[in-house]
Amino acid sequence: MQLSLLNQLRQENPVVLNISNFVTVQDVANGLNALGASPIMSEEINETKEMVHISDAVALNLGAFSEEQVKHIRKMGQEANRAFKPVVLDPVAVGAIDYRLQVAKELLDEIDVAVIRGNAGEIAALAGADWTSKGIDAGQGQGDLVEIAQQAAQKFHTIVLLSGADDIITDGKRVTIVHNGTPLFAAHVGSGDMLSSIVAAFCAVDPAGVYEATRVAATVFARIGELAVGDQSTMGPGTFTVNLLDQLQLAQLEQIKQNIKFEEA
Amino acid sequence: MQLSLLNQLRQENPVVLNISNFVTVQDVANGLNALGASPIMSEEINETKEMVHISDAVALNLGAFSEEQVKHIRKMGQEANRAFKPVVLDPVAVGAIDYRLQVAKELLDEIDVAVIRGNAGEIAALAGADWTSKGIDAGQGQGDLVEIAQQAAQKFHTIVLLSGADDIITDGKRVTIVHNGTPLFAAHVGSGDMLSSIVAAFCAVDPAGVYEATRVAATVFARIGELAVGDQSTMGPGTFTVNLLDQLQLAQLEQIKQNIKFEEA
Amino acid sequence: MQLSLLNQLRQENPVVLNISNFVTVQDVANGLNALGASPIMSEEINETKEMVHISDAVALNLGAFSEEQVKHIRKMGQEANRAFKPVVLDPVAVGAIDYRLQVAKELLDEIDVAVIRGNAGEIAALAGADWTSKGIDAGQGQGDLVEIAQQAAQKFHTIVLLSGADDIITDGKRVTIVHNGTPLFAAHVGSGDMLSSIVAAFCAVDPAGVYEATRVAATVFARIGELAVGDQSTMGPGTFTVNLLDQLQLAQLEQIKQNIKFEEA
Repeated sequence: MQLSLLNQLRQENPVVLNISNFVTVQDVANGLNALGASPIMSEEINETKEMVHISDAVALNLGAFSEEQVKHIRKMGQEANRAFKPVVLDPVAVGAIDYRLQVAKELLDEIDVAVIRGNAGEIAALAGADWTSKGIDAGQGQGDLVEIAQQAAQKFHTIVLLSGADDIITDGKRVTIVHNGTPLFAAHVGSGDMLSSIVAAFCAVDPAGVYEATRVAATVFARIGELAVGDQSTMGPGTFTVNLLDQLQLAQLEQIKQNIKFEEA
Repeated sequence: MQLSLLNQLRQENPVVLNISNFVTVQDVANGLNALGASPIMSEEINETKEMVHISDAVALNLGAFSEEQVKHIRKMGQEANRAFKPVVLDPVAVGAIDYRLQVAKELLDEIDVAVIRGNAGEIAALAGADWTSKGIDAGQGQGDLVEIAQQAAQKFHTIVLLSGADDIITDGKRVTIVHNGTPLFAAHVGSGDMLSSIVAAFCAVDPAGVYEATRVAATVFARIGELAVGDQSTMGPGTFTVNLLDQLQLAQLEQIKQNIKFEEA
Repeated sequence: MQLSLLNQLRQENPVVLNISNFVTVQDVANGLNALGASPIMSEEINETKEMVHISDAVALNLGAFSEEQVKHIRKMGQEANRAFKPVVLDPVAVGAIDYRLQVAKELLDEIDVAVIRGNAGEIAALAGADWTSKGIDAGQGQGDLVEIAQQAAQKFHTIVLLSGADDIITDGKRVTIVHNGTPLFAAHVGSGDMLSSIVAAFCAVDPAGVYEATRVAATVFARIGELAVGDQSTMGPGTFTVNLLDQLQLAQLEQIKQNIKFEEA
């Protein structure tokens, strides 16, 4: 796996434009900044074209789900397509709320999305698979998660990153399963949103190799989570968040490379 | 006091739907999540009915006070009433801003609220008592806080939780005064909002016993604040926030039960 | 330099009203609160007049840049002028986005601003100087930053605080350069926004001496950043943020006075 993309990212300092989830926006901005990217956030449609122009990748988070924001998301996605900037979509809560699922599908029709990053419940809903989400959480269901991720990727012609205890990355055919990570990601509300924007940052430095960029992003983030926990047996979510931000900046490629655990299928 | 509701909450993992204060939304989401509830936040009226349907309790925070959000608050409260989900109202800054006080009273007319959680200035304003708030802070005034809380509870037919150095919980007749807590709660801007949503989480696990759920929530939160401080003599608000999130997840019922200090009047 | 304004601020606990950047709002509220001011935030134009009335100073952050928020910013600035409350403007990203630059100039025509606080790219854009911003970051360019700051101050008849590795404070003639600070401010997304609101807090306690209040604010904040780092050689942005909030509350005037490094030109 081309983990050295991390050093390229830190050198190039790509600008990542975000439609952000209002719940986690500061966390995501700090996470991108700590990793070495340059975050910008916008809530105003009149500046979208200029914002896209100065950006290297775009992350569209459906956590911001007012009608006005959906208009903004559509416009930003279309401008990004026109400017050939890679687009990452985070379909927050489409597994729990039908209204969101409908809107997300419309957006996927109108925007050429490079990567969809969601949890099991969200990806299953997009794939049309049988699954029960719980609130915004992943929930549980029948069915093989790898197959569900592949179905979603084929249906929407994108890379899918289904994140959870294992992360599954697929373009519909190729599959990578990343076994790294920590349960503490689930104790920190912004983890998924942060990962989505970090995927965009990696796509910015390798826009031609989106599958590779996505699986590197997932692996780097999972390993950084492990480094944030270290050898502490009990850690609360407050300390984890602090350590995660620290390690996003401080963790070196050599540390991240140790103990990488992934398989290709 | 039925403190074992905490373990029930952690087991049942209730979904708490929030109209959140944009200032503190991430903090509240992380606090609910750390304690063992499942937070969802929404800013879009078109998804309100579905959001209420998948939730176990609703927290309406008047920190989000644009006209659009007030419409959303009204709709969410009414949907929650229809679905018999308990509603907690946090009347942010009604003690300082007359416009807010008027709107809050209208909402209390239109929505059946189970619990109002506010500081002394906010509850006094609702009760019509003589009090001087300072900005969004509690301020100071004449009059007995227990009587003021009882007046507000009687006037609006709700449970009132007046939080401060002591927390006062009343249904208009019964009164519980919780002496636990720490001044560091006041050094952390999100403390009150977090408590309001945590009250909603406890109401979700005991919707029939809202008075009990509210005083347990206040006591558990106050004790967790004490555990976050521990035996450190000097602590800043940054460290306190981290420790608070840690203890919301890590504190066990046995630790919380120690040193409970409350009286019933 | 009149650093004792810090103790006056902590004693008077001024109310600072903020139009806040949605990315950093919680951080700014916690920062003001930790320092000893009382933060209030608003998103609703109907309460603007009352909000201004109970406030001692106003900070207008252009990070909140939807059309609705710009209307709100205009109204709040004008109400503050009418009530003789000092106004601080933070022109977020005007160095990168022309649309923002145009709107910021209009606002500066319509509102009497006491202080503009921005990074090099933002102040250069306002001054009309040659500079290349990178996203929301300062970027780099030709030209002497002191001259650029003076030009902006003369053009808009305000105090300018150009913050960066060195902070430059000028009223167009007088210049103070503060050499204190730490690179970790740049690793924490909310640093600039927090400084802008802290400048407003110092202006609240010395509205007649805005130049002095601004350079004291910059110096106190820079020194508190240094105290947050202490003698640790490697620190990540998570730990820095926690320590910064701690020191905003805990740092005493005597500690801040040590190692002040500034020059007047």
